[in-house]
Amino acid sequence: MENLLKIIREFNRERDWEQYHSPKNLAIALLVEAAELAEHFQWLTQKESCQIAENKHEAIKDEIGDVLIYLVNIADKCGIDPLKAAHDKIVKNRTKYPAEMVRGKHSKYSEYE
Amino acid sequence: MENLLKIIREFNRERDWEQYHSPKNLAIALLVEAAELAEHFQWLTQKESCQIAENKHEAIKDEIGDVLIYLVNIADKCGIDPLKAAHDKIVKNRTKYPAEMVRGKHSKYSEYE
Amino acid sequence: MENLLKIIREFNRERDWEQYHSPKNLAIALLVEAAELAEHFQWLTQKESCQIAENKHEAIKDEIGDVLIYLVNIADKCGIDPLKAAHDKIVKNRTKYPAEMVRGKHSKYSEYE
Amino acid sequence: MENLLKIIREFNRERDWEQYHSPKNLAIALLVEAAELAEHFQWLTQKESCQIAENKHEAIKDEIGDVLIYLVNIADKCGIDPLKAAHDKIVKNRTKYPAEMVRGKHSKYSEYE
Repeated sequence: MENLLKIIREFNRERDWEQYHSPKNLAIALLVEAAELAEHFQWLTQKESCQIAENKHEAIKDEIGDVLIYLVNIADKCGIDPLKAAHDKIVKNRTKYPAEMVRGKHSKYSEYE
Repeated sequence: MENLLKIIREFNRERDWEQYHSPKNLAIALLVEAAELAEHFQWLTQKESCQIAENKHEAIKDEIGDVLIYLVNIADKCGIDPLKAAHDKIVKNRTKYPAEMVRGKHSKYSEYE
Repeated sequence: MENLLKIIREFNRERDWEQYHSPKNLAIALLVEAAELAEHFQWLTQKESCQIAENKHEAIKDEIGDVLIYLVNIADKCGIDPLKAAHDKIVKNRTKYPAEMVRGKHSKYSEYE
Repeated sequence: MENLLKIIREFNRERDWEQYHSPKNLAIALLVEAAELAEHFQWLTQKESCQIAENKHEAIKDEIGDVLIYLVNIADKCGIDPLKAAHDKIVKNRTKYPAEMVRGKHSKYSEYE
């Protein structure tokens, strides 16, 4: 991950693109890439979405790469370590969604009581 | 990253949530989290977005964590290594956006000719 | 629709919010509202999504209202009539997706040949 | 608007596409179109986003048309009148955001106190 960050920084510096990379702009770019990823699944049934056709695998891999690139980029601009953020969030989620309470259910935590 | 994947898998298994985690559903969840991240910046100027207020830092860190969790999750379901996907995508991007051609410009590659 | 536009303009003017309503900012706001709408359906099966629980109906109506408000708003800032835009797009779509060719299929037009 | 709804219904029926049009799928499609609209503005400054280049006007009009088409479609499937939803939401917003309290500010209503 640190290696990826280094490569992304260098890629942007070589293109003088840092001027466009405010957290705000990167947040839009991240959303746009996440939408491109979702587009591959939009008309599929959930079952179909589990069996990605061979000819879509490369395109989906590219979108996942794009999302991670922008995520690492925005986290960098906000001074946040994305791996630490994910680990810390899981710890919070364990409290928000205790296994014995939510098992097999999909409600939002605010709907449990 | 592999450690994060292990923790996410265990978190989902303990809650019996894998039944909801089709790539399609996870793609929507990823989009929803990316939108929650963008929401923090929507009315800010770009300059303001670069100076996240102290009181927003924790919330933004949480959203970045959520995005990474769902990204690792969907990549896992699609049999894709997100770090490799990002590295391979950067290699593609170097060809799509040669530094000497795009320096300081922000057009989409399809607009260069 | 013209009446809605008039009300939205007045609402914004009374709050001196026009300064925040660049097309860019409104596009993010529209995305955020569209994501809040999608969030209601994210873990549901498609069948479940067709039977919205009574207690979700009001919340979904609110999100649909929010999306339309921002859409009318951004269209206004871009000098575009959204109803005309939709009508004209349907005409284009009839050419892009001839009924006899796409009947019962969901591929993107670029995948037909 | 009622006329647009009639045309959309007919368009879908002719293509036998209603089978794909669960609220869930339409919510994703709406998000994808909203992201395509936002993509046009992602690297622009807010000022630049107010002066859309001639050559982008048609593309932006198309995206606004797409968003409205899917919005009318999902509202129809949920038994909701989008115009009424927007009007009712404005009434709620007047209470949530009293003009004298929020004038010139852009905080979320939950941040006022």
